[in-house]
Amino acid sequence: MQLLEERIRKDGQIREGNVLKVDSFLNHQIDIDLCNEIGREFRRLFPGDRITKILTIEASGIGIACITAQYFHVPVVFAKKSQSINLDGDMYTAQVESYTHKRTYDVILSRKFLTEKDRVLIVDDFLANGCATAGLVELVHSAGAAVEGIGIVIEKGFQKGGRMLRERGIRVESLAIVEAMEPATGTITFRQQ
Amino acid sequence: MQLLEERIRKDGQIREGNVLKVDSFLNHQIDIDLCNEIGREFRRLFPGDRITKILTIEASGIGIACITAQYFHVPVVFAKKSQSINLDGDMYTAQVESYTHKRTYDVILSRKFLTEKDRVLIVDDFLANGCATAGLVELVHSAGAAVEGIGIVIEKGFQKGGRMLRERGIRVESLAIVEAMEPATGTITFRQQ
Repeated sequence: MQLLEERIRKDGQIREGNVLKVDSFLNHQIDIDLCNEIGREFRRLFPGDRITKILTIEASGIGIACITAQYFHVPVVFAKKSQSINLDGDMYTAQVESYTHKRTYDVILSRKFLTEKDRVLIVDDFLANGCATAGLVELVHSAGAAVEGIGIVIEKGFQKGGRMLRERGIRVESLAIVEAMEPATGTITFRQQ
Repeated sequence: MQLLEERIRKDGQIREGNVLKVDSFLNHQIDIDLCNEIGREFRRLFPGDRITKILTIEASGIGIACITAQYFHVPVVFAKKSQSINLDGDMYTAQVESYTHKRTYDVILSRKFLTEKDRVLIVDDFLANGCATAGLVELVHSAGAAVEGIGIVIEKGFQKGGRMLRERGIRVESLAIVEAMEPATGTITFRQQ
């Protein structure tokens, strides 16, 4: 998605340790016009009426999922990262290892909001090692529901997540795939799609 | 907002301890059509071109803020609840006592995304004791920015947050204000607005 790649080149900041900061437009401050173009593109990539629900994970996936859901006319459900006293006991759970935070946490989702009849589009801002996304796939499968596809805004193509998920036969559509990034020069190379 | 009050009566669940669960349409699963009506109503309540940014707090405020921002054509920025290694050191911070989770946490916001020129609409799903919302007000004031108003989806009118903020001269618009709720009968009384 050219608009997105241009924005990453313009406003993304490369940090040591393969960190790409896009907090000025995607995951701390959110450019809603860009977000709308992202939602529109996910819709173009997943046309038809099969998808019944959009699933994401708190926190930075929620805005993208909600804007995207407007193009699908389906509800959003977001997985939570830790047990909350306001949640019922009846939960799907999966363990996720966080690359960013260097720790393991549980993702939880109320059983009420995902059933075996659902066909789910998983949406998130980043795909790197794929741990969070694989956790969401596990939640969908726990419900007996089907993963129709995964829509990612930025994939780090040099990390294993995208390959791992595609090798499992899951359709992964990433709007920008970073093949390489160089902190010293600020150069970003995108995969041709 | 009648549509919202009707939905709360229909799908909200009252639990002991003044807990109102609206996780089937607002803060776990999200009804995007309802969310759009909420955004439209906030826009009606805050017309004009003064607002430059919408501020919320992760996680459940984000979807509402993003949908609402479409009606204001301004960016969203969301405060985070704990230090993340992906955030720069240059942060506004405020301490918040969580009523739901019975603990104190820091809310943080990058200084880059709020300046003294900003006129901010604070948006969140709930207002009860007002601790989280007061924390957001503190972040805005730390930036030297102005709070144009606060837009809340559901206020618990029997808790102190709304009164406390209004007594400070801040305009608080809550789309539904719960005056009383009765777990035994499932009865909810809304404030006439």
